Amino acid sequence: MIGQLPDLHRCSMISAMCTFSENPVVERLSHIVGARYVLTGADANPWSHDWSGTITWTPLAVVRPANTRVVSKIVKLANLNKLPVVPVSGNTGLTKGTTAEGAIMVSLDRMSAIRDIRPDGRTAVVEAGVILSRLHEAAAEHDLIFPLTFGARGSAMIGGAISTNAGGSNVLRYGNTRDLCLGLEVVLPNGEIMNLMSALHKDNSGYDLRHLLIGAEGTLGIITAAVLKLRPKPKAYATAMVAVASVDQAVHLLNRLQSETGGAVEAFEYMPRSFIEAHLKRFPEARAPFDDMYDVNILVEVGALAPRDAMPNPDGSIPITMHLETVLAGSFEKGDVLDAVVAQNDTQRAEMWARREAAAEVSRLRDPIVDNDIAVPVDKMQALLERINKRTQALDPGMQNISVAHLGDGNLHFAGWPETLDPEIHRAIQDAVEEEVIALGGSFSAEHGIGLSKLPAMSRRKDPAALAAMRAIKQALDPNNIMNPGKVIPAL
Amino acid sequence: MIGQLPDLHRCSMISAMCTFSENPVVERLSHIVGARYVLTGADANPWSHDWSGTITWTPLAVVRPANTRVVSKIVKLANLNKLPVVPVSGNTGLTKGTTAEGAIMVSLDRMSAIRDIRPDGRTAVVEAGVILSRLHEAAAEHDLIFPLTFGARGSAMIGGAISTNAGGSNVLRYGNTRDLCLGLEVVLPNGEIMNLMSALHKDNSGYDLRHLLIGAEGTLGIITAAVLKLRPKPKAYATAMVAVASVDQAVHLLNRLQSETGGAVEAFEYMPRSFIEAHLKRFPEARAPFDDMYDVNILVEVGALAPRDAMPNPDGSIPITMHLETVLAGSFEKGDVLDAVVAQNDTQRAEMWARREAAAEVSRLRDPIVDNDIAVPVDKMQALLERINKRTQALDPGMQNISVAHLGDGNLHFAGWPETLDPEIHRAIQDAVEEEVIALGGSFSAEHGIGLSKLPAMSRRKDPAALAAMRAIKQALDPNNIMNPGKVIPAL
Repeated sequence: MIGQLPDLHRCSMISAMCTFSENPVVERLSHIVGARYVLTGADANPWSHDWSGTITWTPLAVVRPANTRVVSKIVKLANLNKLPVVPVSGNTGLTKGTTAEGAIMVSLDRMSAIRDIRPDGRTAVVEAGVILSRLHEAAAEHDLIFPLTFGARGSAMIGGAISTNAGGSNVLRYGNTRDLCLGLEVVLPNGEIMNLMSALHKDNSGYDLRHLLIGAEGTLGIITAAVLKLRPKPKAYATAMVAVASVDQAVHLLNRLQSETGGAVEAFEYMPRSFIEAHLKRFPEARAPFDDMYDVNILVEVGALAPRDAMPNPDGSIPITMHLETVLAGSFEKGDVLDAVVAQNDTQRAEMWARREAAAEVSRLRDPIVDNDIAVPVDKMQALLERINKRTQALDPGMQNISVAHLGDGNLHFAGWPETLDPEIHRAIQDAVEEEVIALGGSFSAEHGIGLSKLPAMSRRKDPAALAAMRAIKQALDPNNIMNPGKVIPAL
Repeated sequence: MIGQLPDLHRCSMISAMCTFSENPVVERLSHIVGARYVLTGADANPWSHDWSGTITWTPLAVVRPANTRVVSKIVKLANLNKLPVVPVSGNTGLTKGTTAEGAIMVSLDRMSAIRDIRPDGRTAVVEAGVILSRLHEAAAEHDLIFPLTFGARGSAMIGGAISTNAGGSNVLRYGNTRDLCLGLEVVLPNGEIMNLMSALHKDNSGYDLRHLLIGAEGTLGIITAAVLKLRPKPKAYATAMVAVASVDQAVHLLNRLQSETGGAVEAFEYMPRSFIEAHLKRFPEARAPFDDMYDVNILVEVGALAPRDAMPNPDGSIPITMHLETVLAGSFEKGDVLDAVVAQNDTQRAEMWARREAAAEVSRLRDPIVDNDIAVPVDKMQALLERINKRTQALDPGMQNISVAHLGDGNLHFAGWPETLDPEIHRAIQDAVEEEVIALGGSFSAEHGIGLSKLPAMSRRKDPAALAAMRAIKQALDPNNIMNPGKVIPAL
């Protein structure tokens, strides 16, 4: 039975001081979820901070439901008592989206079944708590891939990836998470279970609530399960580090590669000289990508889907690698490409990827850091970098830039270590970056989402009519404002 | 100036009898839009029926605004006076989505500018009134394609295609309209202009309102402009008619072709023997696809994106055609493929496509017709066809089946000429079809949308929690229920 608890508000206000048995909500939760899966006090510590450990909070309780029906009961209880609910899965987000002071944290980690993999239909039915790399392994057993991948794949979970519409390194070829998601199961803010678990490629039956929930960061409901697209595993990869004369030249190289291979570029990642240097400082045992240092370094990967592009030629060469080398050689002769190293084996390929995926760790070398996840049209990236450089130089000439970019998607992870410690200057740098992004037709939030971190940008930069529509939708679906309150939608 | 008109409701109730000058709303509209672009009476006739001519209505007026600001003013006026607004572009829909008794019809036909084509960014910025085939031609000038295509492309407009998330024949490779749409400009029900005209591949700045508007069939706002994805034009096509032993064998053939070509299948269309026969009856000058008649006929098209797959071999053969022929030959030897004809030139290719695209005309050979646009997972299509056949045989043994399918998408355009004229039996057939679709995990609405035609199915078949959420969203964004009222969301 779920019932309203009259004196709840008072108790939730002082939740940190309530012991388990004193708090009637926590007691109700233990009836619903099972006492051993309701964590308070020190037991809740693993869920009381973000991955960086720099932000902490004290939830009312952490609950670890075993299935969707239990999630539904939890949310109904919370809604009746107007208590905040914060869903959490891998907790690897970068925008403070899981802060949960005084809230019921619903951890999806026990809902970790890969319910079904249908190789012929190329779909996987998974629960929200499946760790991304586990799904990678399960798909690989069928010679398939789930294309979503990023550095935190060993701990990030599907529920969070969908809730934040995660991006990563293969968006260029396979799209964002929303493009890989056919169906959803969601517990809505009123506790009702919404079943949109379609495995269909065409379904025009009313408003697309699936896409509304994807990327809503838990503010419109809790995603409990999903039907995901799987794709055939490329039969061969060709991977290279390339030094290019400029970012514009890199974009031209990308276009040439796409034409030559018929759109087979899987990843096209930018790292500036300053990042390469910082990486070597953080990982002294690592190798530099080239004998010389260059300003514009690209990690490029091409994947062969057709057998013909992976079948060795009589001389042992692999066609997809030949395509890559041919384009690189042509660009080298023109002077657009300055140097290039093509991976000769999996170890070399892994080394190239390790450098790029160490970006988060490299950024923690120094403190403070000013960073921002932004996007512009691909052909505007050089202009963006130049404008940001000019603006930041004026504000803090000593700032060290360690930005990296998913260049093929026009997505810059701006990051810099400022010389000054003045937080006003840090804010001014952020403002300048956002201004230049907006001026170039870009977005102040590319793939990490809004959470708490980007609320000021949402207030100032988002189209006002769109913001008003989001408020109206949030109010309509969550009138008690219980679902991850205070995130995504700025207060009026 | 836009002002509330006190005696408006009375007048709109008898709008058909109001002359231009008598109706104060129509007079206001003529101030906003220009008198020559406000049509009433006989002038509104072209907008007073659907494409089939079987459904008619009398709008209060048809207005033809020149730009988005004017659309905004029209909607503000309508909202203030709580008058229904029905957007219309090419009016080629199949679910009665533009019926507009007593409504202000907003025709987007004058907003027909292709504002910009950016070949490097592979994007087109277009207004809602651009005819689909005009965009095809404009893209072709840059050796690019806008992949969305279907029979009505010569009159369908972009606004309607986006509003209904149109599908068509190339969804298999390129996705539905929503997958081809990067940005939108929308006039919301309150008349505010929402600018989401992004050309970005990553943009996680709050709820995805773009996807909410796409497919909302004008019930949440009027789409006035869009940023669309363009794709490289395939460098060669290989097209064939294939007779296959069964629908399941056809699906296996599709999977083999996708593996062999690395996912290059552009279209995979199913036509049963009865459709081929009906086509020959309707077009006596047409040729049959094969010397013999077969039960399962497939139109398959493969497109080469990489130059290597389009470059003639020393013997003059084209690699992409060779891939197709190799797979067909292998399947023929196994007995899965019974016959096949590969198009040798553009004329033969056009002939194959003309047969498939004549489906709407063929269906009008006889009256009445029972039809339905439905989807199941691709590997469930044979089961669906068998179950439908069994159910319809029981209800009307004389019914002639002329269904066709976008088989690669699992999308069946069920259509049959019943022998009985009893509308109760027709309804029973529809119910039986929908029951079997739902039982197989399918959708009662694949690509044509809901409009008025599918409201009963929405009521009965859609997940109740999803339906409630749609109602809440509609109420939140359009509290006066002015935007295409009565469509998509069934009355309670």
